[in-house]
Amino acid sequence: MTDTDKAPAPSRRALIGWGGAGLALGAAAAGGAVALTREGDDLQPTAAEAGAAVDFHGTHQAGIATPVQDRLHFAAFDVTTEDRAEFVQMLKDWTAAARRMTAGKAVGEGAYGGLAEAPPDDTGEALGLKPSRLTLTLGFGPSLFEKFDLAGQRPEALVDLPQFAGDNLDKNRSGGDLCVQACADDPQVAVHAIRNLARIGFGKVVIKWSQLGFGKTSSTTPDAQTPRNLMGFKDGTRNIAGTETDRLQKFVWAEGPGWMKGGSYLVARRIRMHIETWDRTSLQEQEDVFGRDKGEGAPVGKAKERDKPFLPAMKPDAHVRLAHPDSNGGATILRRGYSFTDGTDGLGRLDAGLFFLAYMKDVREGFIRIQRHLATDALNEYIQHVGSAVFAVPPGVRDKDDWWGRTLFSKEA
Amino acid sequence: MTDTDKAPAPSRRALIGWGGAGLALGAAAAGGAVALTREGDDLQPTAAEAGAAVDFHGTHQAGIATPVQDRLHFAAFDVTTEDRAEFVQMLKDWTAAARRMTAGKAVGEGAYGGLAEAPPDDTGEALGLKPSRLTLTLGFGPSLFEKFDLAGQRPEALVDLPQFAGDNLDKNRSGGDLCVQACADDPQVAVHAIRNLARIGFGKVVIKWSQLGFGKTSSTTPDAQTPRNLMGFKDGTRNIAGTETDRLQKFVWAEGPGWMKGGSYLVARRIRMHIETWDRTSLQEQEDVFGRDKGEGAPVGKAKERDKPFLPAMKPDAHVRLAHPDSNGGATILRRGYSFTDGTDGLGRLDAGLFFLAYMKDVREGFIRIQRHLATDALNEYIQHVGSAVFAVPPGVRDKDDWWGRTLFSKEA
Ligand code: HEM
Ligand code: HEM
Repeated sequence: MTDTDKAPAPSRRALIGWGGAGLALGAAAAGGAVALTREGDDLQPTAAEAGAAVDFHGTHQAGIATPVQDRLHFAAFDVTTEDRAEFVQMLKDWTAAARRMTAGKAVGEGAYGGLAEAPPDDTGEALGLKPSRLTLTLGFGPSLFEKFDLAGQRPEALVDLPQFAGDNLDKNRSGGDLCVQACADDPQVAVHAIRNLARIGFGKVVIKWSQLGFGKTSSTTPDAQTPRNLMGFKDGTRNIAGTETDRLQKFVWAEGPGWMKGGSYLVARRIRMHIETWDRTSLQEQEDVFGRDKGEGAPVGKAKERDKPFLPAMKPDAHVRLAHPDSNGGATILRRGYSFTDGTDGLGRLDAGLFFLAYMKDVREGFIRIQRHLATDALNEYIQHVGSAVFAVPPGVRDKDDWWGRTLFSKEA
Repeated sequence: MTDTDKAPAPSRRALIGWGGAGLALGAAAAGGAVALTREGDDLQPTAAEAGAAVDFHGTHQAGIATPVQDRLHFAAFDVTTEDRAEFVQMLKDWTAAARRMTAGKAVGEGAYGGLAEAPPDDTGEALGLKPSRLTLTLGFGPSLFEKFDLAGQRPEALVDLPQFAGDNLDKNRSGGDLCVQACADDPQVAVHAIRNLARIGFGKVVIKWSQLGFGKTSSTTPDAQTPRNLMGFKDGTRNIAGTETDRLQKFVWAEGPGWMKGGSYLVARRIRMHIETWDRTSLQEQEDVFGRDKGEGAPVGKAKERDKPFLPAMKPDAHVRLAHPDSNGGATILRRGYSFTDGTDGLGRLDAGLFFLAYMKDVREGFIRIQRHLATDALNEYIQHVGSAVFAVPPGVRDKDDWWGRTLFSKEA
């Protein structure tokens, strides 16, 4: 891994000229190249770089091995157009917009078109904000392959998830022909990105469901302080770091079919926590459930968070014991989940939990194998899976002439 | 205004010792005094102070004139106990918890009680996080005064809001006997605070509704960059700053009844934005709606955001023209709203908008007067008020022996 060039993060304000009375100024600046501060997936951000830009281009899409940002806006879309060319054009338009937004620029060259009579090219609420490490990651759901004559292209590894013990899935929070995962250190930047893609997609796609997340739970940066989930436990201790090229190659990056090489598969699960019940549970029980202690996060019988778990010391139904690769024939996934709190259900309980996101080489050998094994998980008393989706995440957009989904659509587009 | 002592923000990690296997360590540290970095309401935070603590004690509650933090978790509670003494005890317990949490400490002395058999005193997800300028602000709704023989104490200024033109209020997002506004620069800290108060209140109060907010819309700090709302416009340009003691005294701090002196009245409105419609509206129309330009935020005909608005230059139905004090007999309120995005409605539209929060000396002369005048607001085509509540916010907790609501409850408590 080599060092990359670093430059101060450009602010959206600096990049966009916007006239005082609806006039377009600074179009040249907005159209110019922007200095990106990082390349590839393997760099860990320092506090000073928090506002920086993550390179949109690469072999893999950003937002997978990229060090986890603080906030998430995730949206699943359904396709409403039947016109393949129109859909492909939208993917190209999305790519152009994503390229600009991840660099901290407004959508559209020249500051909103400059025409007072036209709707602005960009909704504007991120103007003046930094790129905030925004990444946009696109995925294709199984149902997309029933459209546009794509049936033959559906990857074997993209299976429909089976019904798991305890599942209580809400159709309105599940599935989707497409997804976009927007991660950024500023929620306004993530929300702005999804909203502008939805706007560009108007008449071709419609948002099916979306989820806001905060307080990332799983760090992909090994030395950073591990964040805590809403059960108060450190979450993400044993995860694949963006720097672990070998493990990424082995467990995360897809090898096929051809158009998916360098891509990955994403499982999204909305997992509600019964936090009121959890909060009335003894510390001992809480620690037994995970097989780790709450303060330090050390595995049972060990002193430090990073100590190697000794599984036989844990209760047989401890979450970590059941989820550990050694209990699942080596199955390993890259977790990238976020906490959520979506107001209150009708019963005075917070609608809070974990929006679980995991990337893997093959859904069958990753999530499905582990989740089957979690059927006896002690944690199940305190959680319920209420939403579910799975997506094929194509490889990265290579350069400024490439576009999202080209490897799948290009032959006939 | 005098300078205050400053010390590095204590981290929750530094303050709390927590054993490696459920044992309580560091109880002494957790019980010790914490160095607070600011006093009063009138200081503007610098970036370096972003993790700092805001003093919980004062003449007024923090969270009103305090410079607006980045994130919000707002909860309305209903009272379920009929036992006044029990309710008063809960207010005292809440006060103790709020005092600790705003200082960046866990609830409860000595790291979760140290008893493995008992539920922890704190839910733990904010462990290791900075105080993040957390403020907790308590309010009493009109319905509370129908309980505990309080009818005679209900302030005249706390009127039930009338039905306004265009209101489409959801009962499940309106009203409440109590409210707590939690503001912090880290959402996990704000969510943690509300959750722990709900936990402490178990059996005495129940959450009726709650709202998460991000990307503050209204700055109470005059020189900071004005944040943009989800319509892309700078929001909060003309607001009362925390430093404007005279205007706070004149428009925000209540003078009576006796128990409310130094308190304020809070109006909360959940305002949905039809952002898809808005995004298809021309820039000219958008600017006409507000009477300000989108890029700079300058009033019609002026060059700079801070230039004095000249109302006759605006369209008669422009929001700023109608809301301005000169159009409302001088009526002035302190706005402290947040943007929200709560997933998607059943129709593929983002459930997004402004969670409007405003503090004032008298609800009749503040919000009601202005909102009545906004009946002809051009903005109404793009928004709808879907939730509503009003609260009497008692004066500040003066010192470590004082408690939330003492001035209302103390005589007979
Ligand atoms: C609300 C639900 C869940 C919570 C609160 C949760 C929490 C945790 C915690 C606290 C750890 C220990 C720290 C760490 O190594 O990250 C952990 C580990 C892990 N979890 Fe979960 N988890 C949840 C759901 C799931 C699901 C659905 C899966 C996959 C099907 C999963 C897979 C794993 C894996 C693979 C590990 C690492 C085990 C090891 O290598 O030691 N978790 N989880
Ligand atoms: C979604 C709904 C709303 C949006 C998007 C909105 C947006 C704005 C914007 C962009 C400004 C100009 C910048 C500024 O001075 O802050 C403004 C000003 C103002 N708004 Fe609103 N507003 C909304 C609802 C309300 C409501 C419900 C009230 C009170 C009933 C209100 C009262 C005011 C006042 C008093 C001003 C300052 C006027 C002046 O002194 O020039 N707004 N609003």
